[in-house]
Amino acid sequence: AATARLVGRLIPDCLLVDVGSTTTDVIPIVGGAPATTSRTDLDRLREGELVYTGAVRTPVEAIAPTVPVRGRAVAVSAEGFALTGDVHLWRGELEPADYSVPTPDGRPATRSFAGERLARVVCADREMLEDRDVSAIADAVWEAQTGRIGAAIERQRGRHPALSRAVVTGLGAFLAGAAATRSGLQVVHLADTLGSAARHAPAAAVALLFPS
Amino acid sequence: AATARLVGRLIPDCLLVDVGSTTTDVIPIVGGAPATTSRTDLDRLREGELVYTGAVRTPVEAIAPTVPVRGRAVAVSAEGFALTGDVHLWRGELEPADYSVPTPDGRPATRSFAGERLARVVCADREMLEDRDVSAIADAVWEAQTGRIGAAIERQRGRHPALSRAVVTGLGAFLAGAAATRSGLQVVHLADTLGSAARHAPAAAVALLFPS
Repeated sequence: AATARLVGRLIPDCLLVDVGSTTTDVIPIVGGAPATTSRTDLDRLREGELVYTGAVRTPVEAIAPTVPVRGRAVAVSAEGFALTGDVHLWRGELEPADYSVPTPDGRPATRSFAGERLARVVCADREMLEDRDVSAIADAVWEAQTGRIGAAIERQRGRHPALSRAVVTGLGAFLAGAAATRSGLQVVHLADTLGSAARHAPAAAVALLFPS
Repeated sequence: AATARLVGRLIPDCLLVDVGSTTTDVIPIVGGAPATTSRTDLDRLREGELVYTGAVRTPVEAIAPTVPVRGRAVAVSAEGFALTGDVHLWRGELEPADYSVPTPDGRPATRSFAGERLARVVCADREMLEDRDVSAIADAVWEAQTGRIGAAIERQRGRHPALSRAVVTGLGAFLAGAAATRSGLQVVHLADTLGSAARHAPAAAVALLFPS
């Protein structure tokens, strides 16, 4: 909410898409203020203003029921073997330092171990899967996750068709930007305005709204 | 595999559907032997002989992307707030003693607490949701889980159209039976032949194959 008010000051009419480590907020801002009547998280989930998908902590099986392995769809395991942090680390869109929670297997948050965790999603290991096989899994999860965020963006666009800009922020701003671009929105990175502190948008917003 | 060999002795041509706490095996048995060339779990996942869905341990978000709340689809959270054990406990198809793992919130495996965990799936609590609302969530997950098992059954039926019987077993035999019935298969409960030990089928099979 603090982020939404800050963004409303900077860009009075836009769709704020804030992808954090765990959840995504998709908040229409009209005339400088959040345009929502939601009061609870249940309201927000139902209205698509809260999407329970994030850049680090979301288990792969909560995003994609199947992933491709050498061109064939394989149903995923459901053990939390890999998180979205592993997907985005593998693809190079997050750095190890961004992986803000313990990894599922307790091993380091490096690209190499992320690949091992992604292989386990289909009950495989790196002796069975080449780099390109792991990339196919990671890309499929990226696609599914971007699609979920995109669907929430489309819902808000349906309600507020005049909005033409998306302000994207959070650790997963890269996902927000990809989804918003696909929806035909002009993408503004909050970080470009506020600096890199916007990767942790709520804290930055509070700091700007309540300067010490 | 021990279960499949045992079932093959009893019913030489059938589809074995064994729903455990965590995973489901769907194994065609032809002429008394398992008819599969799968060697690894990746093979089995790809062929639909292994479905990573079980009667107790599967997180709700690994099964259903949305559940209905008062008639509207609500996207689920992805925190492991509730497991299939909570779904089947709520619906009365499992007993508290069947809940063989710690609950997500560390509270007891009773129907009442299962209801609280299911409410959290949509970021709600029992002050916000009536019993019938919780039932709608549980029923939707049951439906989605049965559908996944059913899809795996259909794949095997496509390969072995002569099979007309399903032998169902495991803690989640009730799910296997529902899915097999929908597929038009005659359902045989292994427990009816072996007694209640079949609820833990592998152990029972080993005991019968290698009597001491």
